[in-house]
Amino acid sequence: MSTNITWHSSHVTRSDREGHLNQRGVTLWFTGLSGKVARSGKSTIATALERELFLQRKSTYILDGDNIRHGLNKDLGFGPADREENIRRIGEVCNLFTDAGLIVLAAFVSPYNQDRDKVRSLLETGDRKDFIEIYVQASVSTCEGRDPKGLYAKARAGEIPNFTGISAPFEEPIHPEVILKTGDQSVEDCVALLMKYLKDGGYLSAHKNSEEVF
Amino acid sequence: MSTNITWHSSHVTRSDREGHLNQRGVTLWFTGLSGKVARSGKSTIATALERELFLQRKSTYILDGDNIRHGLNKDLGFGPADREENIRRIGEVCNLFTDAGLIVLAAFVSPYNQDRDKVRSLLETGDRKDFIEIYVQASVSTCEGRDPKGLYAKARAGEIPNFTGISAPFEEPIHPEVILKTGDQSVEDCVALLMKYLKDGGYLSAHKNSEEVF
Repeated sequence: MSTNITWHSSHVTRSDREGHLNQRGVTLWFTGLSGKVARSGKSTIATALERELFLQRKSTYILDGDNIRHGLNKDLGFGPADREENIRRIGEVCNLFTDAGLIVLAAFVSPYNQDRDKVRSLLETGDRKDFIEIYVQASVSTCEGRDPKGLYAKARAGEIPNFTGISAPFEEPIHPEVILKTGDQSVEDCVALLMKYLKDGGYLSAHKNSEEVF
Repeated sequence: MSTNITWHSSHVTRSDREGHLNQRGVTLWFTGLSGKVARSGKSTIATALERELFLQRKSTYILDGDNIRHGLNKDLGFGPADREENIRRIGEVCNLFTDAGLIVLAAFVSPYNQDRDKVRSLLETGDRKDFIEIYVQASVSTCEGRDPKGLYAKARAGEIPNFTGISAPFEEPIHPEVILKTGDQSVEDCVALLMKYLKDGGYLSAHKNSEEVF
């Protein structure tokens, strides 16, 4: 529907920004069942990783259901069409933050492979490989066992429609870059594993061909 | 419509991020008639300012019709309701980028005071004063005179509906923080004026109470 518009890049390039920040822009997409758990879950691990990255002077930003659902997507509900639009918009925001040179930590239930793959394709166009899918694996029974807010119990009782894992499906990622088994691994272990992945992948320094203009 | 969600802040705070970047997160909102002009206009000035800020090692990101309309808002058209939703979503994205500690340069026609004021109120809650409205002032006749793509001519001929300034209204900002008269001021002058505004306002260094944790 958009017409009369053309893409133009700003004079400061993504490579410039990455050189300045000494890192590579990338989206870390945490997917898995809804937790709200005390010890480990998508947001818990993302927050712990963010802290570790900050201590290494990296620039990050967390996107999660809490800051997105109160703002950008507050007009959306939890039915299938709205969930799809929810993830689409989040993917576009991840794309902007990644282009800005930041390390984005996106923590969303995001239960459908099709929706996650659309975000992946947005961040993997051309030479770009800026999407890292992290499956935070926990069984429904584990999440039910933790359930400090009693959400699973309410969902079982039919009081919460479209609750992923109970009254709505969760499709396991097919080829995630990283799998975290939060039943077996501590938060610290998960963070160490992810830091190694980022370091080995070259994300924690600028590209070699970045020019330092100062 | 969103339920069962609560806001929680990540352990790395905005103040932490601003301390790291040595700047304050803020949204610079450029508003004015559509240009696509060669020498001066919203995007031209924003791009030149971005370059100057980059040379001073500041972290910025430009949001404009080009990168937003091809992505986040590609489902929206140019009628009144879609224009309102367009600006609402952009305001929410500005809010996220500002919270991330970046200096956001948002360049959009954004013809309605009501829509711009909603973005302002989003960024001016509580103690926050993170919205700087910059009116890039150019008369319709000036823009028509520049018109390298012939858009004004097409709009005059009725070929482009909802074209701001011709077939759709532009409401001048009532209390913009900065007015740039691009007919009289060069791009360099506009950039110098904006840099002074940012420096005097304390945006180019972190808050005094930011803690350096390293």
